[in-house]
Amino acid sequence: MNERKEIQTYLKDAVITVEEALKSVLPADWDVPQRLRDSMMYSLEAGGKRIRPALVLAAAEAVNGDEQASAQALSVACAVECIHTYSLVHDDLPALDNDDYRRGKLTNHKVYGEAMAILAGDALLTHAFHLIPQTVSSGVPAQTALAISSDLAMLAGARGMVGGQVADVLGEQGITSISELEYIHLHKTSDLIVFAVTSGARVGGASEQQLELLRQYGRNVGLAFQIQDDILDLIGDEAKLGKKTNSDVAQQKVTYPYLLGIEESKAEVERLTQEAKAAVLDARLAEPLRLLEIADYLLNREY
Amino acid sequence: MNERKEIQTYLKDAVITVEEALKSVLPADWDVPQRLRDSMMYSLEAGGKRIRPALVLAAAEAVNGDEQASAQALSVACAVECIHTYSLVHDDLPALDNDDYRRGKLTNHKVYGEAMAILAGDALLTHAFHLIPQTVSSGVPAQTALAISSDLAMLAGARGMVGGQVADVLGEQGITSISELEYIHLHKTSDLIVFAVTSGARVGGASEQQLELLRQYGRNVGLAFQIQDDILDLIGDEAKLGKKTNSDVAQQKVTYPYLLGIEESKAEVERLTQEAKAAVLDARLAEPLRLLEIADYLLNREY
Repeated sequence: MNERKEIQTYLKDAVITVEEALKSVLPADWDVPQRLRDSMMYSLEAGGKRIRPALVLAAAEAVNGDEQASAQALSVACAVECIHTYSLVHDDLPALDNDDYRRGKLTNHKVYGEAMAILAGDALLTHAFHLIPQTVSSGVPAQTALAISSDLAMLAGARGMVGGQVADVLGEQGITSISELEYIHLHKTSDLIVFAVTSGARVGGASEQQLELLRQYGRNVGLAFQIQDDILDLIGDEAKLGKKTNSDVAQQKVTYPYLLGIEESKAEVERLTQEAKAAVLDARLAEPLRLLEIADYLLNREY
Repeated sequence: MNERKEIQTYLKDAVITVEEALKSVLPADWDVPQRLRDSMMYSLEAGGKRIRPALVLAAAEAVNGDEQASAQALSVACAVECIHTYSLVHDDLPALDNDDYRRGKLTNHKVYGEAMAILAGDALLTHAFHLIPQTVSSGVPAQTALAISSDLAMLAGARGMVGGQVADVLGEQGITSISELEYIHLHKTSDLIVFAVTSGARVGGASEQQLELLRQYGRNVGLAFQIQDDILDLIGDEAKLGKKTNSDVAQQKVTYPYLLGIEESKAEVERLTQEAKAAVLDARLAEPLRLLEIADYLLNREY
């Protein structure tokens, strides 16, 4: 057996795998208007931690310890990144967050114009549902692919990510309680992480009981991830984040650190991480270690 | 056997069936921000001919003459209307067509604001993919539902409807040839009509050969539909259309009548309709009559 990779190396390798796969899901000779493909690729290739697709791959492998499962799940990993990317492109639009930069690069509409950014977002969203059925050709049963597609529509839609985004838009300045903030984060951030973990686990052959425990993992990891983001945004290093820190405070955005203070927010991230790990252990997966390590990695990240 | 319905009555009944079903696909007690549901329902309930969902139901029934198939296809019919509606909501946005009215009602962003219109469009698009897997509970095989979902992602996405919309946006003012215009219409209009017909036919149990002929039907009907729209827009009655006629000419929009003249455009609609009907007859469906009648109905419509 080879020496075991550090989690940092494992995640870096996942980024390479996913970014390579993303290139081939929008082939260069694709029969679409060139500018549309350019606009889609611009945001897909804009980097980021690729933590959602990494979770798809890790969860697929975790269930039965079968590395083949993570290869089978690769088009689902690309699908989740298409969804995440479209949500950023639309969120950055002038009518929403009106951001000019993301990760140190101009946002999509600043490069391609608003019309193209709206349409490229629509195309990326739709493309996710094109990628999921492709798992069937790598041996995933049609029922499983359909369940994954149905989960994505639920978790990315009105009752999921879009609902969270709407609550965020409607709540701006008016949020005063942790429970309102939690609603936003659970939908805007956790739901897609829940999808990433459970879709991978479905490819890996997880039982309903395992899926339910992995949903708990995803909810907690997602919430911890978002609170950690808010903490880093407040105290972080401008260069590392690639955007102005303290921007939420400048905009008077209500966050966990704003409502609870930094120390209590850090404690909450820690508590959520432990709960997430407990759920994974309860799920009795064949190889739970990567999912445990990823929860810890996200807790300890500095950007 | 009951007396056979006129096609007008058949289509009116289909509108009632679909509008009833649309109410239940976004239930009133749905756990989403109320304003998001309101915004989605506002545009879903804004009327229209509902020709796409009617085609889903008609095609489902046509293949084996089984009325039960059209009931099984009802959630697919709702899905296609969600897609059509989202495309209108996004097309009307200030960054795209910047329309204040559609079918005599204020457009979504004029009522709910741009941010909500973008997000409600995203939610409607996503919801279509939530509805398709529901056909399984009415007896449709998972493989069939997955093929329908995959078709929708193809025909509504970058290589389909969104691609057509992008070509339209990029081509404004610069289009000089029928072939460029045809590309736009084939994707912006025909692709979703192809989806409507073939998804219904899949539920009805069509063979691959039948699906291919029905794709030809859909392409031709879609193109005829769009040219007829342009003709009616030029000569039509303002009240019947619910929008300013001649608006395309005022905006110097290049259309079939603009490039070919009205008489030649009418001849083209007639020719496409005959080709569409020939393809349906070649497909040897058990009950082809409704699909033939719908092609004629669209040819002869006055609004």
